[in-house]
Amino acid sequence: MSLSLNQWTTRRWSLPEAVDGCARHGLEAIGLWREKVAETGLARSAKLVREAGLRVSSLCRGGFLTAGGLPGEEGRRAFAEALDDNRRAVDEAAELGAACLVMVVGGLPGVRPGEALPAGFSRDVAGARERVAEALASLAPYAGERGVKLALEPLHPIYCPDRAVLSTLGQALDLALPYPEEQVGVVVDTFHVWWDPALFEQIARAGRRIASYQVCDYLHPLPADVLLGRGMMGDGVIGFPPISRAVAAAGYDGDVEVEIFNAEVWAADPDEVLATMKERYADFVAL
Amino acid sequence: MSLSLNQWTTRRWSLPEAVDGCARHGLEAIGLWREKVAETGLARSAKLVREAGLRVSSLCRGGFLTAGGLPGEEGRRAFAEALDDNRRAVDEAAELGAACLVMVVGGLPGVRPGEALPAGFSRDVAGARERVAEALASLAPYAGERGVKLALEPLHPIYCPDRAVLSTLGQALDLALPYPEEQVGVVVDTFHVWWDPALFEQIARAGRRIASYQVCDYLHPLPADVLLGRGMMGDGVIGFPPISRAVAAAGYDGDVEVEIFNAEVWAADPDEVLATMKERYADFVAL
Repeated sequence: MSLSLNQWTTRRWSLPEAVDGCARHGLEAIGLWREKVAETGLARSAKLVREAGLRVSSLCRGGFLTAGGLPGEEGRRAFAEALDDNRRAVDEAAELGAACLVMVVGGLPGVRPGEALPAGFSRDVAGARERVAEALASLAPYAGERGVKLALEPLHPIYCPDRAVLSTLGQALDLALPYPEEQVGVVVDTFHVWWDPALFEQIARAGRRIASYQVCDYLHPLPADVLLGRGMMGDGVIGFPPISRAVAAAGYDGDVEVEIFNAEVWAADPDEVLATMKERYADFVAL
Repeated sequence: MSLSLNQWTTRRWSLPEAVDGCARHGLEAIGLWREKVAETGLARSAKLVREAGLRVSSLCRGGFLTAGGLPGEEGRRAFAEALDDNRRAVDEAAELGAACLVMVVGGLPGVRPGEALPAGFSRDVAGARERVAEALASLAPYAGERGVKLALEPLHPIYCPDRAVLSTLGQALDLALPYPEEQVGVVVDTFHVWWDPALFEQIARAGRRIASYQVCDYLHPLPADVLLGRGMMGDGVIGFPPISRAVAAAGYDGDVEVEIFNAEVWAADPDEVLATMKERYADFVAL
């Protein structure tokens, strides 16, 4: 395994700046975000990472597939639009040569991050999960034809209302297993899964289905905006070594992305963030 | 099933006031808290609920058993103190005739709610879980001898660092099953478990092990203090009917406690809170 920068960790940097930063800090891989790729342009982004000799450890992110759970025409339109957008994301991942497309599947239909509950939102979490399975049946073959692996990311249950009705690694595996290994895998992100009593059993079960291993710490207490509760490794409560060992024992030998959503990290000098990240990775995560 | 007031929902009320409130609003049961019982006195509290003809649907709470995971003498002392305190809680539950003693098992050793991580806290979540199992081996027979049922409460994973390394109903059942049904059961609290993809499977598996069914809603967005993210039924994202049906189908026919931690509810007139609670219970929860 080797260290990769998920570019959202240094979100002040444009894609060219992040590519340059990885090269200067001796990293071999980068995780890209679609927003950043779009700013720079897809073809130019692909050229930049290729010329810098970087692997693209993931493209973030597809998903948000659950709005189809809204009733009637609104739901049908939202579902079709989500599938269209995800096919574009697959195409982008293919052109970038990304090891996987990270899928954040979406929350309860109609519920939006940070906003009050709107009239007409859905409380049907089981139905939302069925929409995800339905969407996957359409997207997995499309991704397979383009050589892209969809990586289903279970998110911490705190994000179940607004971001992902996919909450555990076991649930992600249940969704992935009907498809070929090269079409659908799963993400192990320490922030999201560290608390799961079934974690080690499910990592072993995942085996070669692990498409991405992402690390960052879980802060305590959480900040007011829980989305920003992610911290540099060593700043929170997660014990990384048992998780790293389990992921390695399962057969994962890909890149390890550091993906941190944190107001202080975002405000810091990105070069210092990379230097700290390398140190902390060596001290807390690497085997 | 019938409605019960968990007295923390009306925490401005003393125990005598809450008992009186339940009687005036026609409730048949109340869930008590040790702090409130201590204010009024154990014998007087027991007499008051008995004379009012109320069932005590639960006593909250025992637990916080994980500090034994701290190293050396500090850990040994903390573990012994926790066991002592839990034996006192069992004795109180027996005198009150409580249907169960709710157990919030505790978080990572040394981590405290709302406080920054102290030096020397433990990241060993697996070890903390072992301490819980170890404590249970001592407490379950003690409870059994006094006719008290320990009710293991899985808490939402957001509370794993500081309040409960017990995060899922399945995990709670694994801990409970080695003991007789009358000694150790589990709590189904909608706030804590609604997101769990294995919820319905585990409720069915629990069967008569369900010692308490607690309801309140999960607010979105969460407030800055996530402990207070609980709301009146209908104010959040939880779909109660499938959960109520599953709990009933599992064989639970006890009281349904409404337990709400919420700054606005606590600031409101408790009589209005009870009136609203009865309406919302009828509209959203009752079958």
